[in-house]
Amino acid sequence: MFESAELGHKIDKATYDKEVPLLREALLDAQLDLAQSGMFPVIVLLGGVDGAGRGETVNLLNEWMDPRHVQSHGMGEPSDEELDRPMMWRFWRALPPKGKIGVFLGSWYTWPILNRVNGVTKTADLDQSLERAKRLEKMLTDEGALIIKFWLHLSKDKQEKRLKVLEKDPKTRWRVTERDWEHFKLYDKFRTVHESVIRHTSTAEAPWFIVEGEDPRYRSLTIGKMIQEAIRKRLDTPEKQPTGINAPPLLPSIDHLHILKTLDLTQKIEKKKFEEELEKYQGKLALLTRDPRFREITVVLVFEGNDAAGKGGSIRRITSALDARIYQVVPIAAPTEEERAQPYQWRFWRHIPRRGRVTIFDRSWYGRVLVERVEGYCSEADWMRAYTEINDFEAQLTRHNIVVSKFWLTISKDEQLRRFKEREKTGFKRYKITDEDWRNREKWDAYEQAICDMVDRTSTEASPWTLVEANDKYFARIKILKTLCSQIEARLKNLPKNKAT
Amino acid sequence: MFESAELGHKIDKATYDKEVPLLREALLDAQLDLAQSGMFPVIVLLGGVDGAGRGETVNLLNEWMDPRHVQSHGMGEPSDEELDRPMMWRFWRALPPKGKIGVFLGSWYTWPILNRVNGVTKTADLDQSLERAKRLEKMLTDEGALIIKFWLHLSKDKQEKRLKVLEKDPKTRWRVTERDWEHFKLYDKFRTVHESVIRHTSTAEAPWFIVEGEDPRYRSLTIGKMIQEAIRKRLDTPEKQPTGINAPPLLPSIDHLHILKTLDLTQKIEKKKFEEELEKYQGKLALLTRDPRFREITVVLVFEGNDAAGKGGSIRRITSALDARIYQVVPIAAPTEEERAQPYQWRFWRHIPRRGRVTIFDRSWYGRVLVERVEGYCSEADWMRAYTEINDFEAQLTRHNIVVSKFWLTISKDEQLRRFKEREKTGFKRYKITDEDWRNREKWDAYEQAICDMVDRTSTEASPWTLVEANDKYFARIKILKTLCSQIEARLKNLPKNKAT
Repeated sequence: MFESAELGHKIDKATYDKEVPLLREALLDAQLDLAQSGMFPVIVLLGGVDGAGRGETVNLLNEWMDPRHVQSHGMGEPSDEELDRPMMWRFWRALPPKGKIGVFLGSWYTWPILNRVNGVTKTADLDQSLERAKRLEKMLTDEGALIIKFWLHLSKDKQEKRLKVLEKDPKTRWRVTERDWEHFKLYDKFRTVHESVIRHTSTAEAPWFIVEGEDPRYRSLTIGKMIQEAIRKRLDTPEKQPTGINAPPLLPSIDHLHILKTLDLTQKIEKKKFEEELEKYQGKLALLTRDPRFREITVVLVFEGNDAAGKGGSIRRITSALDARIYQVVPIAAPTEEERAQPYQWRFWRHIPRRGRVTIFDRSWYGRVLVERVEGYCSEADWMRAYTEINDFEAQLTRHNIVVSKFWLTISKDEQLRRFKEREKTGFKRYKITDEDWRNREKWDAYEQAICDMVDRTSTEASPWTLVEANDKYFARIKILKTLCSQIEARLKNLPKNKAT
Repeated sequence: MFESAELGHKIDKATYDKEVPLLREALLDAQLDLAQSGMFPVIVLLGGVDGAGRGETVNLLNEWMDPRHVQSHGMGEPSDEELDRPMMWRFWRALPPKGKIGVFLGSWYTWPILNRVNGVTKTADLDQSLERAKRLEKMLTDEGALIIKFWLHLSKDKQEKRLKVLEKDPKTRWRVTERDWEHFKLYDKFRTVHESVIRHTSTAEAPWFIVEGEDPRYRSLTIGKMIQEAIRKRLDTPEKQPTGINAPPLLPSIDHLHILKTLDLTQKIEKKKFEEELEKYQGKLALLTRDPRFREITVVLVFEGNDAAGKGGSIRRITSALDARIYQVVPIAAPTEEERAQPYQWRFWRHIPRRGRVTIFDRSWYGRVLVERVEGYCSEADWMRAYTEINDFEAQLTRHNIVVSKFWLTISKDEQLRRFKEREKTGFKRYKITDEDWRNREKWDAYEQAICDMVDRTSTEASPWTLVEANDKYFARIKILKTLCSQIEARLKNLPKNKAT
């Protein structure tokens, strides 16, 4: 979930100085058009970790925008007036009217998160608060509001560094409080709760946008641009979508850095070493799946990747370690007529295995946010809601002791070309390469954007994505086997009781 | 919530014998058109209390409909195949494809309810299950499914009677099990849980329809007709609504019996008795609101009623007992420009009082499901979602120790005419009667339907509607004062701790 916000996004000063005047003008334009049309209110929520720059962002937005049409609200400790009324009253009181922008520093998420981390409430209470927040946002968007939710993130190291830097400088020292350091000690606990909050409340109508908070220039430009583009998009398409969803757009990161670019595709394993490791991890997998405790769990594997990235070969290295009676490989192609007559998820539910079994999906439910999104086979509203639906789906699986292990196999564009050509030459591999593969290749950038959004929005603590550097097949296969073994091992060691709900 | 399903709805044999052949033909027609179009699947859920006729209904539907296009599923104890997979798998397996109808006896609600009543789970767990169920239904309706949820209800007396009748008859004795009687002993507990389930999961996309289960003819015709009309409505308006909501229609009850008809409007109090009681209950109210514990709670009163039903007079009898510093009367008319620039609920939230205060709404947020619905000031989707939004809103209030007391003042059509004419004669009352009042009167039946739906869908254990027979002003005023006193008293006696969520 936070992968993309830990890459070290940066904007250099020259670019920033060039971009800011343009952005400010566009923002003012959007604001003015919004005010004149009086079409909808804009609600900007700024959440995130201490030191990630929420306060500075509010100040900057106030500086950049027309103060007549924007109002910011620091939602700190409630006043006695506010405590005397239901929790949501303070937000209702501060809601911007149509045509205006309200920026909230802290939100209806702040106190439920703090109460959970401090142990005042249980997970179930947190979930109830989140459902209330979701219902509120649903009502607001049903009433036409544009809600843009930013989550400013810092990795643990970065947060520590940032707090120290702020503390050192006499000009900013006052901003670091005792409480900030107390919170820092609870970083991991906060992270788990934050992930759960973002996963539960990133809806199709009001998705979260996670922004890396370290570099002020990157953070400011990103947030400013998102607000400007979201207002502009809505002003340009005022009519409601058929599904009632009219969300802010998902944009590529402004510094063009993304998770796939950070992968080191030159990683290699020599053949001899590969054979040793293969034997080792296949042996381990064989033992794990024959462990008596394995009957209590289930394994669902998802393989996605670029065309020709070697999914099939990797799958075969897994299945050859498994008892043929316990596994099934399910290739996912275009849906059959029977499948098209059912809701999208039906074709995957039907293949969910029993306890003690393994199902390997060769392509999967992620088709909706990859090929269907890029090729326009479904509407924006459909793939936007798919992220939430997928998270719900996988949460149901993991709740039932199912290990959900997801692999994205990445190869470089050059390596793909080499493999395509090789396949065309090799007679028995020629069937593997089609015109569609060549067409997909032309949309490389659109696919990259879709892959990054997919990982950002569906990689969770319970079922994370593993990105596999697959230019070298040996390396890829071993990484996959090793990851799979450790995930199964972890689950077997930590068998939770099954809840009767 | 169950008020309308405890009225003793009945259809006589002659009517039934006349109606059934027509309904069956219409049902078969709808089914055939549905199958041929293959446009959407229909999911019928049958929930409810034991003995309310769920099983018979399934049998009847199977008899009435074309067996090629309908399939029923008894969702009893899960099989070992099903237990080995996540809970929802068994439902996915049984989902009807587009063009077909699936009837579910028991559903994703059955086990969460049983587990809660049997104490296996807590309220928070139940809420989580309900949220999962709601998300599933949301996904299904987003994918185009038509979901029709029936709740077959019996009052406690009726359930006991029904179980005894079944037990007496050798032909039906086998249908009453040990478990049915065990459940009967838990009737009140079940009722509370059922109400919570219905309130939480009666969404705009998939509302519950509560059907009185006692009379088989009424029950069968009602359910058959609802299914037929819902399919027909959807076939006739295939395009998605702008808000993505395309719910089954709310229909008047087939025997034309409704809660307002059961009120005894002849009830009267003599003047002398009135003055005694007025003094008594105004005194009581004065004491209660001066009780030190009153500072811990808040009172929100809602007055709705027919035009000229005497809301103003009743309100004055309350306020004259209150310290002027603690109360406020908020008359709700057409929204101001400022209010129109905000979401619908904003104008009510702004008047929510502090602890220790009383706010009296003379007309209220119920305008959306009354005048706005009947006059077409908002879309069907808007007033359909308003029921859920109102329940959420009031739940937030009651969670905060706010007594939410709602009065509907009913007068007969004749009495209204008398009062209108009187007002026109009396100089100083003439301002009270407008053309609009006369126009509203013409839509008497449409308003009655809206009032009944409102009470059915928003009268909850925590904030029930009190229906007030108001042909006699004295009677009405005393009933209101008495009810209010007892509600405040109950809350003061039972001050719950405020949850920090």
